[in-house]
Amino acid sequence: MTTVDKALSLLDYFSNEQTEIGLSAFARLSGYDKSAALRMLSALSRAGFLEQNTQSRRYRLGGAFLRFARLREDAFPLTEMIRPIAQQLNDDTRETVHVSLYAGGRLSTFLVIDSPRNTRAHVDSGMVLPFNATASGLCWLAFSEPELAERHLSEDFSQYQSVTLTDRASIEANLNRFRELGYSLADRSFDDEVSSIAAPIFGAQGEVLGCISLACVASRMTSELTTSYSQRLVDTAAQVTQTLGAIVPVSYRRLTQSRSVMGSNL
Amino acid sequence: MTTVDKALSLLDYFSNEQTEIGLSAFARLSGYDKSAALRMLSALSRAGFLEQNTQSRRYRLGGAFLRFARLREDAFPLTEMIRPIAQQLNDDTRETVHVSLYAGGRLSTFLVIDSPRNTRAHVDSGMVLPFNATASGLCWLAFSEPELAERHLSEDFSQYQSVTLTDRASIEANLNRFRELGYSLADRSFDDEVSSIAAPIFGAQGEVLGCISLACVASRMTSELTTSYSQRLVDTAAQVTQTLGAIVPVSYRRLTQSRSVMGSNL
Repeated sequence: MTTVDKALSLLDYFSNEQTEIGLSAFARLSGYDKSAALRMLSALSRAGFLEQNTQSRRYRLGGAFLRFARLREDAFPLTEMIRPIAQQLNDDTRETVHVSLYAGGRLSTFLVIDSPRNTRAHVDSGMVLPFNATASGLCWLAFSEPELAERHLSEDFSQYQSVTLTDRASIEANLNRFRELGYSLADRSFDDEVSSIAAPIFGAQGEVLGCISLACVASRMTSELTTSYSQRLVDTAAQVTQTLGAIVPVSYRRLTQSRSVMGSNL
Repeated sequence: MTTVDKALSLLDYFSNEQTEIGLSAFARLSGYDKSAALRMLSALSRAGFLEQNTQSRRYRLGGAFLRFARLREDAFPLTEMIRPIAQQLNDDTRETVHVSLYAGGRLSTFLVIDSPRNTRAHVDSGMVLPFNATASGLCWLAFSEPELAERHLSEDFSQYQSVTLTDRASIEANLNRFRELGYSLADRSFDDEVSSIAAPIFGAQGEVLGCISLACVASRMTSELTTSYSQRLVDTAAQVTQTLGAIVPVSYRRLTQSRSVMGSNL
C-alpha cells in the first residue's frame, strides 16, 4: 500500500451511520499512528475531500466530492440516464429500486427510488453492499470477470443474519445457480425483513458495471411475484445496459431472452 | 507538498472540457515523471477515483465520487436544501441561477438552474470559478475571512476578457465597493456576453461557504434590473444561510436589511 492508498482508504470509514470522525478514531480504526493519520487527513482536507467541524474538530466528507461528482455526471451521466428506467420499474412493482456501481473494490448504491407503499424496504444511498449478503453483491460476484470476483471471494465474510452465507462453497453453489437464472436472490440474508433480487448492468466491454435491484418487504413476496419481478428486472437491466451504449453479452442475452418471451406477466 | 497532495492535485486537471486524460498528458501537465505519475494514478484508480477507458487507456473521474457525494449529501444535504430556494429566484428573474461552494482552495459550482429564456447565460456545473473574473469569485474574496482571501489575492490572475481585473489594486478597490453593497458584480469580465451578480452564503461560524449568483445575458441588463436583481439576490442568499441553520453576521445583515425595506421592487 502506498501512502496515497492509505490516505484514500481513510475515507472509507465514513458511512450513513458514521458521518463525522475525529483524529483519534481515525488512528484507532486504521491502525496508523496519530501523526501519520494527521498528515494524511490534512492533505485530504487541503484538497477539499474532508472538512473539519470547527466546533468538534471532527472530520466529515468535504465539498470537493460535489464538484467531482458533478464533473463525472456531466461527462458520463449515469444517474440521469438510469433514473427514468429505474422509476418505471418502481412504478410497475411499487417496491424499492436501487442501482449500484462497482468502484474502488466496492459495490455501492448511487441511486435509490423508494417504494411508495406504507411498508417498504429502506436502502441508504451511498452504502456499501456486502458481496455475500445482498442480492446485488451476489449478482456482481456471479457475472463479473472471474479474476475480479476471485479477489472478493477470498475475503472474510460477515454474518448479518442466521441465513447469511459466509462459507465459500455455499456461496459458489449459489453463484452457479444465479448464472443459470440470469439474476440473483437474497432472502432475509442482509436485513431480516427484506428480500432482494438483482440483475447485472454491463459496460462497453461486456464487464459488469454494477446491478439494478429490487428490495421488497420479505413478508409480501410469493414465489409467483419473485418469478415475475425477476424477469421484469432482467429486462430492465438489459434496457439500462443498452441506454448506456453498451451491449448485453450474447451468452447472457440467450439465457434470459428465451424466458422473456413467455416470462413477463406483470 | 506531500505525495497525497500531489496525487489529489492530478484530479484537478479534469474539467467539463477535459473529461479523459492519458498518462503522458498527466505527466506533462503536472511536471512529474511518468513512473511517479503512474504510481499515483494507479492508487487513485484502486480507490475508484479514476477509471480507465479500456480502449484508449486514458483516465476519467471514477465512480467512487458518486458514492462519496451521496454520503455527503445524505449527511449534509446542501444541494437539496438549496435547490427550491434557487428555483424560486430562477422563477422570479428567469435568469440562470448557480450556487458555488468553496472547497480545496477552489470555488466551484455545484448547482445550476438554467434560465428558461431563449437566450441565456450558460454555466457548467462542476466548473471552477476564477476569483478575479467572476461575480462569485469576487464575492467570495470580498466576504470571506481575510487570511483565506489573502492566499488567493496573491495568486497570478488570468485575463479572460479585455475588462477582466488582474492587478491587485483594482481588484481590492472593487472588493471594498462590494463590501459596502453586500454583493458583487462582474460585467462581461469572464464571458464577454454575460453579466453576473453574486451574494455570499454564510456557514455556522459566520464563514462564507460559497455564493449564490445570477448569470444574465449582458445585453438585457439595465441598471434598474441590476439593482432590483441584486436586492433579490441578497435576500435569497440570506434565506439560504438560514435554511442551512446558520446565521447571517450582524454587520452584513445591518448593511443589507436597511436597503431591503425600500429596495425590493421585483
